[in-house]
Amino acid sequence: MNKDLLTLLQPEAARIDDTMGHEFEAIGNSLLSEVIHYALFNGGKRIRPLLTVLCASLCAIEKIPEGFAAEEDLEAPEDLYRLAAVFEYLHGASLLHDDVIDHAKTRRGKPAANSVFGVTPVILAGDFLHARAMTLAGEIGGVRIQAAIGGAITDMIEAEFLQMQTVGEKRLSEENYFAVLRGKTASLIGTACEVGGLFGKGGDEKQCAALRLYGDALGLAFQVVDDLLDYLGDEKKTGKGVGNDFLEGKMTLPLIHAVNNAQGEDRTFLLDLLDQEKDKRAARFEEVRMMIEKYRGFSYAREMAETLVETAVEALDIFQESRTRQVLTGLSQYVLNRQK
Amino acid sequence: MNKDLLTLLQPEAARIDDTMGHEFEAIGNSLLSEVIHYALFNGGKRIRPLLTVLCASLCAIEKIPEGFAAEEDLEAPEDLYRLAAVFEYLHGASLLHDDVIDHAKTRRGKPAANSVFGVTPVILAGDFLHARAMTLAGEIGGVRIQAAIGGAITDMIEAEFLQMQTVGEKRLSEENYFAVLRGKTASLIGTACEVGGLFGKGGDEKQCAALRLYGDALGLAFQVVDDLLDYLGDEKKTGKGVGNDFLEGKMTLPLIHAVNNAQGEDRTFLLDLLDQEKDKRAARFEEVRMMIEKYRGFSYAREMAETLVETAVEALDIFQESRTRQVLTGLSQYVLNRQK
Repeated sequence: MNKDLLTLLQPEAARIDDTMGHEFEAIGNSLLSEVIHYALFNGGKRIRPLLTVLCASLCAIEKIPEGFAAEEDLEAPEDLYRLAAVFEYLHGASLLHDDVIDHAKTRRGKPAANSVFGVTPVILAGDFLHARAMTLAGEIGGVRIQAAIGGAITDMIEAEFLQMQTVGEKRLSEENYFAVLRGKTASLIGTACEVGGLFGKGGDEKQCAALRLYGDALGLAFQVVDDLLDYLGDEKKTGKGVGNDFLEGKMTLPLIHAVNNAQGEDRTFLLDLLDQEKDKRAARFEEVRMMIEKYRGFSYAREMAETLVETAVEALDIFQESRTRQVLTGLSQYVLNRQK
Repeated sequence: MNKDLLTLLQPEAARIDDTMGHEFEAIGNSLLSEVIHYALFNGGKRIRPLLTVLCASLCAIEKIPEGFAAEEDLEAPEDLYRLAAVFEYLHGASLLHDDVIDHAKTRRGKPAANSVFGVTPVILAGDFLHARAMTLAGEIGGVRIQAAIGGAITDMIEAEFLQMQTVGEKRLSEENYFAVLRGKTASLIGTACEVGGLFGKGGDEKQCAALRLYGDALGLAFQVVDDLLDYLGDEKKTGKGVGNDFLEGKMTLPLIHAVNNAQGEDRTFLLDLLDQEKDKRAARFEEVRMMIEKYRGFSYAREMAETLVETAVEALDIFQESRTRQVLTGLSQYVLNRQK
């Protein structure tokens, strides 16, 4: 199903790529244009814009009078794709600035933009994408959609500050972990879904709220699974090393659960190790993994992801059965079962 | 007149400061809030928001039926101040990112934000200001105003790229110099004026275009005068060292004019010196200043600034005489005659 699902969505993703290509044709400066193309066309799956388009379709289907046009005949307008692509620009802008902040060397297996072009063009290209994205959001979506998107950006930034201020906090609470996830990942995905509902007055208030809930839960589940893969993933499939989060001292749900539930010397072992240098932590990663297993950190995180996906799927209950709804349900299963 | 003018505008500037203070009261994260306050409340004269408010008043005056309310009784709505302050947020965001890019140590005599808080919070706070500014522009101003502001931001960034790509170009053309100025300085100031006209449908198309022209010309004049002060200013008044532009190898109008007009060994002297190390250039700064004088680089730039200010003043001719128009005319004289 998963592979089929992505194949099924391939033409939509290609149309989004097409739209994105046209949007930046008019950039006068060749270097700016190069940085932006490097940042945007990097083999991304276009999940956020796809969600916007699918959620808009879901609301459009609700309006088909019985016996009239079939779901397959609904033609989404070009403007919807242009609006949907805004989420890719914002995502791209935020990755550009993140890579500068983290001094990243690579991104998706390619050299990171900052190591190709240097810091200055990358900061500025991020700002440019940001400004274009907000302008397009207003021009195509109107003030309400633009305000929703503006809110998602400020959520992301506030969450980055929260994360920055709790770096090195070994006793991080689950609440704090989820607060960061909500701001950094879930808010933009939830907004991508909500905006699909808001587009062209497609959905009513209840439908838009349901789509937002679906996207928020999907985004949280996505990140929890990501955090699980960092401990349990197959490097050949994920394409990234296992154990990075622990080596960097990043507290994610499996470890948080283990630290909060471990007793006596097990707890001391974990907390002491988190104080050690990176190479010391690396040497004992296998033991840590076993310790998290012992305190059910992985199954706890797994169950959390499952619950979130259930929440996402249930949020769609208010929509009638349709192929589009099946695709959205399928996407949430994909998020849960992905191995990369 | 100049001092009187700024004193006259002091209550307006204070009201803008007040509005700015309220706008960011709701930031949840204390560090983010601190960075933003540090960046915004630094003794700036609030010229851009003042221009928005004044231009909006100018259009409102046009609508007073003869014999009715006096100009002094016009009360600008709170929303106009909130919209006007957007230009201060954008200006602030751009300074934050510029200081990171330039590894700046100081800004307006205080430690630069990046040297107080570090690079990460400053990049993120710039993004936050940016997002809030665009959202406010849409919410208060509507789609047209928001698009104008979005265009000003992308102009600024394209100009930064143009400047980046011509760094070290000793034979920089005047055309290139003005293209950078237009994007980096004039576009945002022109937009601040235009938005005053667009606010609440205050001005018609012709009036908005006139205000834009006024602001563009004022912005260009401002920067040309800035470049003159860098050679001829009194350090005690400007508060910054003289000759910085030449030491950094930055080609500004007086020097561009001199290089383009110098002959024989004078020309060779200038071009060779621009290839030398910074300390070599510093040692011969006095000679350079005399050489620019010899080829009338300063008077050329001065006349250019005067012409630009005339253009700005003439653009206001379509408006009836009023105190507000006098203030705007006075501001352009202030830009021309300022010594800091």
